[in-house]
Amino acid sequence: MKKKVAVLMGSDSDLPVVKSAINTLKEFGVETEVHIMSAHRTPKQACDFASSAIDKGFGVIICAAGKAAHLAGVIAAHTTLPVIGIPMKSSTLDGLDALLSTVQMPKGIPVATVAIDGAENAALLAVQILAVYDKDLEVKLKAMKLKMTEEVLEKDRKLNSEL
Amino acid sequence: MKKKVAVLMGSDSDLPVVKSAINTLKEFGVETEVHIMSAHRTPKQACDFASSAIDKGFGVIICAAGKAAHLAGVIAAHTTLPVIGIPMKSSTLDGLDALLSTVQMPKGIPVATVAIDGAENAALLAVQILAVYDKDLEVKLKAMKLKMTEEVLEKDRKLNSEL
Amino acid sequence: MKKKVAVLMGSDSDLPVVKSAINTLKEFGVETEVHIMSAHRTPKQACDFASSAIDKGFGVIICAAGKAAHLAGVIAAHTTLPVIGIPMKSSTLDGLDALLSTVQMPKGIPVATVAIDGAENAALLAVQILAVYDKDLEVKLKAMKLKMTEEVLEKDRKLNSEL
Amino acid sequence: MKKKVAVLMGSDSDLPVVKSAINTLKEFGVETEVHIMSAHRTPKQACDFASSAIDKGFGVIICAAGKAAHLAGVIAAHTTLPVIGIPMKSSTLDGLDALLSTVQMPKGIPVATVAIDGAENAALLAVQILAVYDKDLEVKLKAMKLKMTEEVLEKDRKLNSEL
Amino acid sequence: MKKKVAVLMGSDSDLPVVKSAINTLKEFGVETEVHIMSAHRTPKQACDFASSAIDKGFGVIICAAGKAAHLAGVIAAHTTLPVIGIPMKSSTLDGLDALLSTVQMPKGIPVATVAIDGAENAALLAVQILAVYDKDLEVKLKAMKLKMTEEVLEKDRKLNSEL
Amino acid sequence: MKKKVAVLMGSDSDLPVVKSAINTLKEFGVETEVHIMSAHRTPKQACDFASSAIDKGFGVIICAAGKAAHLAGVIAAHTTLPVIGIPMKSSTLDGLDALLSTVQMPKGIPVATVAIDGAENAALLAVQILAVYDKDLEVKLKAMKLKMTEEVLEKDRKLNSEL
Amino acid sequence: MKKKVAVLMGSDSDLPVVKSAINTLKEFGVETEVHIMSAHRTPKQACDFASSAIDKGFGVIICAAGKAAHLAGVIAAHTTLPVIGIPMKSSTLDGLDALLSTVQMPKGIPVATVAIDGAENAALLAVQILAVYDKDLEVKLKAMKLKMTEEVLEKDRKLNSEL
Amino acid sequence: MKKKVAVLMGSDSDLPVVKSAINTLKEFGVETEVHIMSAHRTPKQACDFASSAIDKGFGVIICAAGKAAHLAGVIAAHTTLPVIGIPMKSSTLDGLDALLSTVQMPKGIPVATVAIDGAENAALLAVQILAVYDKDLEVKLKAMKLKMTEEVLEKDRKLNSEL
Repeated sequence: MKKKVAVLMGSDSDLPVVKSAINTLKEFGVETEVHIMSAHRTPKQACDFASSAIDKGFGVIICAAGKAAHLAGVIAAHTTLPVIGIPMKSSTLDGLDALLSTVQMPKGIPVATVAIDGAENAALLAVQILAVYDKDLEVKLKAMKLKMTEEVLEKDRKLNSEL
Repeated sequence: MKKKVAVLMGSDSDLPVVKSAINTLKEFGVETEVHIMSAHRTPKQACDFASSAIDKGFGVIICAAGKAAHLAGVIAAHTTLPVIGIPMKSSTLDGLDALLSTVQMPKGIPVATVAIDGAENAALLAVQILAVYDKDLEVKLKAMKLKMTEEVLEKDRKLNSEL
Repeated sequence: MKKKVAVLMGSDSDLPVVKSAINTLKEFGVETEVHIMSAHRTPKQACDFASSAIDKGFGVIICAAGKAAHLAGVIAAHTTLPVIGIPMKSSTLDGLDALLSTVQMPKGIPVATVAIDGAENAALLAVQILAVYDKDLEVKLKAMKLKMTEEVLEKDRKLNSEL
Repeated sequence: MKKKVAVLMGSDSDLPVVKSAINTLKEFGVETEVHIMSAHRTPKQACDFASSAIDKGFGVIICAAGKAAHLAGVIAAHTTLPVIGIPMKSSTLDGLDALLSTVQMPKGIPVATVAIDGAENAALLAVQILAVYDKDLEVKLKAMKLKMTEEVLEKDRKLNSEL
Repeated sequence: MKKKVAVLMGSDSDLPVVKSAINTLKEFGVETEVHIMSAHRTPKQACDFASSAIDKGFGVIICAAGKAAHLAGVIAAHTTLPVIGIPMKSSTLDGLDALLSTVQMPKGIPVATVAIDGAENAALLAVQILAVYDKDLEVKLKAMKLKMTEEVLEKDRKLNSEL
Repeated sequence: MKKKVAVLMGSDSDLPVVKSAINTLKEFGVETEVHIMSAHRTPKQACDFASSAIDKGFGVIICAAGKAAHLAGVIAAHTTLPVIGIPMKSSTLDGLDALLSTVQMPKGIPVATVAIDGAENAALLAVQILAVYDKDLEVKLKAMKLKMTEEVLEKDRKLNSEL
Repeated sequence: MKKKVAVLMGSDSDLPVVKSAINTLKEFGVETEVHIMSAHRTPKQACDFASSAIDKGFGVIICAAGKAAHLAGVIAAHTTLPVIGIPMKSSTLDGLDALLSTVQMPKGIPVATVAIDGAENAALLAVQILAVYDKDLEVKLKAMKLKMTEEVLEKDRKLNSEL
Repeated sequence: MKKKVAVLMGSDSDLPVVKSAINTLKEFGVETEVHIMSAHRTPKQACDFASSAIDKGFGVIICAAGKAAHLAGVIAAHTTLPVIGIPMKSSTLDGLDALLSTVQMPKGIPVATVAIDGAENAALLAVQILAVYDKDLEVKLKAMKLKMTEEVLEKDRKLNSEL
């Protein structure tokens, strides 16, 4: 059975950035569940969600959070699923706080961290993970990669025709 | 009834630094309970401890953790007690990761953060908090402050007699 | 007798951020006194205020300052009350200067530091400190925590109804 | 068929840290291939390895590199497999250069970044990825998680029996 | 035969900054070729371009890239030509990520790094390199230096006449 | 009448670094007074010293302090004399905390900051300040500058005779 | 004879910030000379200015520069006068580059560094330096300090009357 | 006529690191001149050297300096030759100060910056620059690149034979 992806964000203010993760998962036809869920404000819901995620058919959990971004780490503490962390830029420190809070996890509990505000890449990474044992997704990823290359080449041609 | 202080540390490797917090609390005659407890490796124990801390007679919880230091934040998520965070220096980044992971808490869940490796100050802050409604501790704090001043003055006299 | 909270800020330009601390304290029914007071421009007033704060019935002092933020440290030097520091973001360095100037206090003089511009959390921490020996405030804090949780759950329901 | 994991490192000086990744993969019974391979010194070999990795039965590629750590990004450019980056601490800047060079990947090419020198977590993340569709590995991961919890509890009991 | 300069940029969004490099090269009468080319999205094109650059008559390659800026390093891996890196400022971290990803190259593969967004200086450096064995360019550089000095002196005179 | 220089340090652990400031002042024949004095542990002594420094014949005050280095700022708050700050490196953050706490002073209260651990330069700066209206010191400074130049030239000759 | 102050800035774009230094010096009645002068674009003029500054009656030289801010250091290399450096914030890195380039001077050549964009404080420091042997300026500085205190107290009264 | 390379270092304490630059240049048969020369302690010598470097047959100037590393910038101010800067790590800040002081040069005066302590790469970059119009050096660089690749492959074979 195909695994689902969960996209969790610490606050509804993260939605404008996180949206591109949701859209990317949709483009790949991956079933996705989205939640606002906070390590600090709804800790029990976060525990429960993570603890039951495997049984509910999830394969990957994406967590977006800013500042002292504990969401990904807290979720990872309660599951053995791969957890992807998106450090969110907030009003100070340009996301460096969220990056370090997400990536510097202690031995035993990894969080797969992507770039600050890197929601689209988080989704792609989730698809890559599911694609390890899913030929369909692998094919779609390769197609996307080719398209991406072609877009750059097209931009290069356009630039050179204009210069 | 006098409140107790809990001293939690994410790993037993934190003990050499955290010890000075334990000793300081002892000097002030504050009843103290010490635990190795991890936001990531023993998340349920951490939740349970925090959730029941008020009922067990704790007044303050001190949390020491390094790297992506989530312990203080996770504890604070499950209690309304004041939580003091000690960011621990680890093998890279000089404790900056732990500092930002501890202090940059989102709205609603404060962590009272002290200096990197500032275990003694964490204990003093706990005593100050208990002393708000405890004349005995207030008197002891004032005595300690006087002694501290006298020590600096004595060092100054010694320096000037040697120069 | 109920203790009061003092909210000090280094400059009147800090008021827009600090206001949320004042409002939060009001919501909890905590008596509050507010002052513009500078470690550098009104050092004597700062000394005097801190030295007499216990006798005037204060239980916690909140200090907001930016750049080389010395206010919290200077106040802490003259009292044994718990002092909470709010590092303020200013025109350069995104508040990192104020954060380090506030949190990295030497042994003996702790400052309970909250996030950069974290005025609301400073107020909550003050309430948590007073609540250690004040059941009324403890009950209010628990109610606020429940409300905070409910708000996130509501936002999650709203998001999922719209997606 | 079970997927293999590749562990690539930019220099043989990375081996002492990377070794714990190799050992962890072995403990989980995951077939592993190890290479010294440089984005800058053996770029063709790196391209070739990445381009043919899926066909050779790899499921995940782990890349360890320091300083301007381009290895993970270069490998990710040539494959759709999930690529895990380990930023290595080197003689200056404490690994911050390698962290930013690894994690801040542009849209379209994610690298799943773990903590600085986080080799063991890189291996665990690889196992978690393979376990999404491999019940055996999932069971082993859960066992490891329980053991990890038990170890912390045991350390806590020991500490409390000694205090 | 006069050598050409290549100006490569990782994304068309870099063009507004990179344009001043192109213009400066034009002012010095240096033949220039411009490409959008990505270490991650068009890795093969990047390899091919770098590998054949000497044979195509290039003397210097300028590479502009942001975030985990691998372009200059990847190009340098495939050629012995001097490669100049322009770290581009992007939406977070103010270009520090690109600076470290560009400048901290490992032993054996230097990248001549200029300031963040320093496109004009990258072009001047390219001209200086070509001028080592090209008297015409040397003369033009000296003239530009004199003009630059004269402009500052003129501004100083203007300022002093206005004050 | 010749002005004296005061050298204050926050802790006796600063002495090994600060010593070179004391020695340099002695070499220039400047009368010097040395004190261990803390903005936090002996705040009253610091206030009193600064307030009476002009009347006691001081011309410059040098302050060395680490971590949240408030000493220079606190002294500067109580005097109109030029205050020189030496940010001291301590066990974490390499002195960056002390640098920012010393240099980022608010409008109205400058601190003349020298390099981290730059005790000798602090002394030289003090001498330069006194030399503005003291021909003797000016002559000595010029002689020192010549000697410094000659030492470098001598080292260059030695290096070239050995290569 | 009264000494003059020189205010040098690396670029005319620094003028909006530097203006407050010029105005402050004017308020204190200090004779001031202002120049746009660059360590890199007009190096000879900078050398000449610094070398002859004492003979022309200058007592202090203020230098404002951004990015790799070498102006203050280059000026200090050619004179024994106290040199004050103002690190200017530019389009990236928030002035941290200019701060480190200005303050981290090697042994023998101090630069008295003030806060990023701290032009007014640079002027006040210059006045403080001249005031060491100038009673008139000392009196004016004390008056300014009193006025500054009074302004804060007035703002505090206003705030409290409005709250 | 073949151009020479100059290797300048700000202090004789830089020699242990800079030595590998000198050795590398020797291996390529490039005539090299080495000097201890300081932007701050021997500014006139630095000006003179840079001003006459073209006439003396130099093609590239390498400058190594730590802390507020002004040497490369000052040399670049007086010549149109390509100037390569090596930021040296010193006792604090891990070379970040020297990196920013070297690389963040203003418009008009580029410094080709290599990694912190990257002396060998500075030499290679100098050779690459000279090789633009020197087939012999180009051939040697290609040979070195092949050898470098072969060494990595050999290390990989050795590692795999041992595992």
